[in-house]
Amino acid sequence: MIIGFIGFGKVSKNLMRLIKSDDIAFITSLEGRSPKTIENIKKEDIDVLDTFKQVVEKSDILISANSPKSALNVAKKYGKYTKGIYLDLNNISPDTTFEISKYTDNFVDGAIIGKIDSDNPILYFAGKSSDELLFLSDFIQMKKVSDKIGDASKLKMLRSTYTKTLSALLIESSEIAKNSNLEDEFFDILSLTEGSEFKDKAISRITNTINNSKRKSEELEEIINYFGDEELIMVKAALKKLNR
Amino acid sequence: MIIGFIGFGKVSKNLMRLIKSDDIAFITSLEGRSPKTIENIKKEDIDVLDTFKQVVEKSDILISANSPKSALNVAKKYGKYTKGIYLDLNNISPDTTFEISKYTDNFVDGAIIGKIDSDNPILYFAGKSSDELLFLSDFIQMKKVSDKIGDASKLKMLRSTYTKTLSALLIESSEIAKNSNLEDEFFDILSLTEGSEFKDKAISRITNTINNSKRKSEELEEIINYFGDEELIMVKAALKKLNR
Repeated sequence: MIIGFIGFGKVSKNLMRLIKSDDIAFITSLEGRSPKTIENIKKEDIDVLDTFKQVVEKSDILISANSPKSALNVAKKYGKYTKGIYLDLNNISPDTTFEISKYTDNFVDGAIIGKIDSDNPILYFAGKSSDELLFLSDFIQMKKVSDKIGDASKLKMLRSTYTKTLSALLIESSEIAKNSNLEDEFFDILSLTEGSEFKDKAISRITNTINNSKRKSEELEEIINYFGDEELIMVKAALKKLNR
Repeated sequence: MIIGFIGFGKVSKNLMRLIKSDDIAFITSLEGRSPKTIENIKKEDIDVLDTFKQVVEKSDILISANSPKSALNVAKKYGKYTKGIYLDLNNISPDTTFEISKYTDNFVDGAIIGKIDSDNPILYFAGKSSDELLFLSDFIQMKKVSDKIGDASKLKMLRSTYTKTLSALLIESSEIAKNSNLEDEFFDILSLTEGSEFKDKAISRITNTINNSKRKSEELEEIINYFGDEELIMVKAALKKLNR
């Protein structure tokens, strides 16, 4: 079994770490890569081919994990050479996922939930071909959402709708509590019903959202664009909150 | 030790159940009560005096637990006869709490968190006199917030700010998930990070909010009035959402 990577960043590197088996070989290419990526690849136990075309042709599973912006171009350029599965793990919208699926056979819509560099990320798959990836459950938690391409990306976006809006709510309510000189008490009282980890989780969400507010705003905008026909009162308020 | 009640509904009845001791006697009056309340009182192990004035004068701890609307009037009428502690447990705003405190000495601002008819409600107290209630921790979970009258009511309101806005968020995001035919998957995927009880809790919050949307809206309006100087983007969105 050969798994090929287009893109060799955090996702690919950690998948290699998680999927360790004598029966699996990993391949990629240095074609057009930055010096830093080349350096990273050379540290890993991975075979390097001359071109990405060769990587795609040789892979039983080709994993596209580069960047949301380049995901579609990668599929346009290399999708047609796929012999096995083409698994997209970029953080892209259901629409882009669907668009990509046109350029390759045996396409699998994949979404990573949780931190890929942790010990327990979960892969969500959608599309008929995802059945052929079920063996990965020996190495990593995974779940097939449905046969419908786009459902994994959509589910990730739905999750994001909740978590990002929740962060905006946490920012607002803790601000009011702070202005009332009852911030600690606010977290403590909520921990009683929301679980003992509430405070730490809430503070980590608030900090993470404030430190990355530009990116979080963009992601909320993407959600609003995608679910445009829905009533999005809370999500739009969250975007407004983050833009302050 | 004598504990007297003005108001004999769910709160008073359950406090009697929780605070059981040979050293404590309970008193109340049937004065002006409804046939139903009279019937309820007669079922309990409680001494009945002719008037509330007598109840207040005899109580070491007088508990006002009637209704948010009558809380202030009760204090105006009976507060001046208090010899011991006057504990208000009505669900009232910090402003009303402060207003009530003018009509009686040894006032304690009390707030009930959790369901009073469960085994683990928690009482929050504020005000200097709350130290004299600390012995209640033998019977019921309790916490003193501060010496500042209004802080217990304020803390309850801050909690409410979060939980009611969260319910609006749960309603909105689960609606979108449902329209995407991914409602179960939406709850499942969030349970991974929000805890195994997430789904049950979320559904109970959604149902409870929808079934009581008028009252919940009024409570959100009260929050918006009270914290009017704060930036309340998320809370206002929650009110808008509930009004649909």
